Amino acid sequence: MAIELKSSRLVQSIPRSGIREIFTLAETLENVIHLEIGEPNFDTPPHVIDAACSALRSGATRYTSNAGILPLREAIAARISERTGRSVSPDRVIVANGAVGALYLAAVLALERRDEVLIPDPCWPNYLGMFRLVGAEAVRYRQRPENGFLPDLGNLQELVSSRTKALLLNSPSNPTGSVIPMEKLSGLVEFAESNGLYVISDEIYEDIVYEGEFASVLECDYQSGTLCVSGVSKGYAMTGFRLGYIVVPDRLVDGSRAVIESVAGCITTVSQHAAISALSGPQDGIRERLSAYRNKKQIVLDTVGDTGRLLGRLQGAFYAMIDVGERVGGSMQFAKDLLQEKAVAVSPGITFGADWDHTVRISYAVADEQLRSGLKAMLEFLEPQGGN
Amino acid sequence: MAIELKSSRLVQSIPRSGIREIFTLAETLENVIHLEIGEPNFDTPPHVIDAACSALRSGATRYTSNAGILPLREAIAARISERTGRSVSPDRVIVANGAVGALYLAAVLALERRDEVLIPDPCWPNYLGMFRLVGAEAVRYRQRPENGFLPDLGNLQELVSSRTKALLLNSPSNPTGSVIPMEKLSGLVEFAESNGLYVISDEIYEDIVYEGEFASVLECDYQSGTLCVSGVSKGYAMTGFRLGYIVVPDRLVDGSRAVIESVAGCITTVSQHAAISALSGPQDGIRERLSAYRNKKQIVLDTVGDTGRLLGRLQGAFYAMIDVGERVGGSMQFAKDLLQEKAVAVSPGITFGADWDHTVRISYAVADEQLRSGLKAMLEFLEPQGGN
Repeated sequence: MAIELKSSRLVQSIPRSGIREIFTLAETLENVIHLEIGEPNFDTPPHVIDAACSALRSGATRYTSNAGILPLREAIAARISERTGRSVSPDRVIVANGAVGALYLAAVLALERRDEVLIPDPCWPNYLGMFRLVGAEAVRYRQRPENGFLPDLGNLQELVSSRTKALLLNSPSNPTGSVIPMEKLSGLVEFAESNGLYVISDEIYEDIVYEGEFASVLECDYQSGTLCVSGVSKGYAMTGFRLGYIVVPDRLVDGSRAVIESVAGCITTVSQHAAISALSGPQDGIRERLSAYRNKKQIVLDTVGDTGRLLGRLQGAFYAMIDVGERVGGSMQFAKDLLQEKAVAVSPGITFGADWDHTVRISYAVADEQLRSGLKAMLEFLEPQGGN
Repeated sequence: MAIELKSSRLVQSIPRSGIREIFTLAETLENVIHLEIGEPNFDTPPHVIDAACSALRSGATRYTSNAGILPLREAIAARISERTGRSVSPDRVIVANGAVGALYLAAVLALERRDEVLIPDPCWPNYLGMFRLVGAEAVRYRQRPENGFLPDLGNLQELVSSRTKALLLNSPSNPTGSVIPMEKLSGLVEFAESNGLYVISDEIYEDIVYEGEFASVLECDYQSGTLCVSGVSKGYAMTGFRLGYIVVPDRLVDGSRAVIESVAGCITTVSQHAAISALSGPQDGIRERLSAYRNKKQIVLDTVGDTGRLLGRLQGAFYAMIDVGERVGGSMQFAKDLLQEKAVAVSPGITFGADWDHTVRISYAVADEQLRSGLKAMLEFLEPQGGN
């Protein structure tokens, strides 16, 4: 007699992303303005494409070592040293399948079943799935627009329990656009150290900062407890190359390689060569793209800034949280209605945390004209009488 | 007061691969003949490289859906239908980071902590890490050279417990080269079904079969419990593209996509386009490579066949288990000594299972001349007096 087959409870407990739900719905419609997905609207730099093709033609089609090829890990270490003023050994760099793969590796390294991890509220919903898969529980710490969407040490202290094992930081932040300044970051890292917590720092938007200076956890002294994640996806418009990385403490290098061997083998070889080209080649593209994002940010400020609906300050990344008020059916229904009525796709706030059902997140990494019309259509939908 | 940081016990429990240990040691020496690693010694077909470059230049540099682009999933489904005579919906195909990523996905889908999974003895050591990471226990079932290294139903029946949730099959087999014929496979799948077990079938060497015909679990009726893994790495010499896939039952499609979203996001976009070219383009390369492997197999038979040291029959894949006898320090010491004395790298049998410490595994996917000299040097090392 056959027993009914189940799939793992962990898999069943992964929450669906509201971003993806709207994206999937939007794919069934025509001429949609996509303000829901977080993907740079730039092309990968041509010299990176050339380097990738040239690598493919010279036989970069075989396995690499689990952690990634040494020249890439050296290029990553060099970039980190240049930015943080601290030297990082290439051995501590582990290449992963995008920042997603690097964050999942961090979860596997730092957490066991029933451990708790402190995550921002609001936050990118995909963190939940990663932590669920390792059986850990995510506990949300408060970030509020009136405090620039920054973490609050008092609140963090209240949330720490004997089961807490890690603190997740995300600066520049998806979905809020906030950037944690160095002074604040030092305090957060000290808090983690004094409580024996790992710091998992998602720094994938490090290249996209408009105000002040980006601060990395790798600038802090607590290297033994720091798992720092970044990649080339956002800064170099290379999302499809799936090239992220994590910097781990020395003692976790062997374990990290073993995990990559077990879940991926290694990362696509041509992507590793493309990333070397991106990191070692001309860097003006970063400045040019940053300047273009800054213009787009200005379009958001010009369009929504005066409505009282824009939450927080847009200091980095390319997201903005917008207050749409309490609505029947909440933010998911609002996003669906907006999509049907105005062909504008936005992400429902509820997917970033239960307290954010009165908001939506927009990504402004789209063409200026699209951005302008999309925002205008959304405001019209919000105030159909025409305002005044 | 800071608490000492540990990394997850699961990570610490991943066994090191003896293959990798020898490979790492071999990298420190010069002019080594590599018979330890399982990588085709062919170049990726030129039309696949062309397709990859052309895709990169047309902007295949962005995210794809979690499961992979539809044209690729259609190409995979078409290939499966052609080979198995059964139609498989492209929805059931999930693209992963190599067969490794697909196998890890299977482990996450089918198994929970403390579940048991039946795995072959001997087997590829990386299975252990995957199953450890999900907290499952691997229980080895017997495969012996005197029975052509095939699974034994009586033995499997003895090993099933209330905790057993899955049966792992691997045909053509790494490390034994055995191929499970259809009649045997049917019995194994019926055994799994009647015990309510998932069948996780690693079919990555499906294109490399010399005797009889390859049989896939997808030809059997038990689709609701079958997780079938393959990829383009071995058949098309595309290991560095990291393009594997898994066919899952309908009810696990959503869960599979959620797992990929949480551990990888999606798979490298250019690799997906390259795989379409491999699967849809001319297929003569497969026959040509098979014929070349057949010659290499003959070199193994000519060199080792008469010594009584060759275990099993070489029906598929490109591996052979060779009896080196009980030795002081076991197979790992033997492999290290052989590497130091003769500059020939082989994989120690112990890494494939505790009962195999009197063996080594060779991969014959190397240039004919290297293969001949490597085997000859190993035999000389084994019988230094010159034989007779």
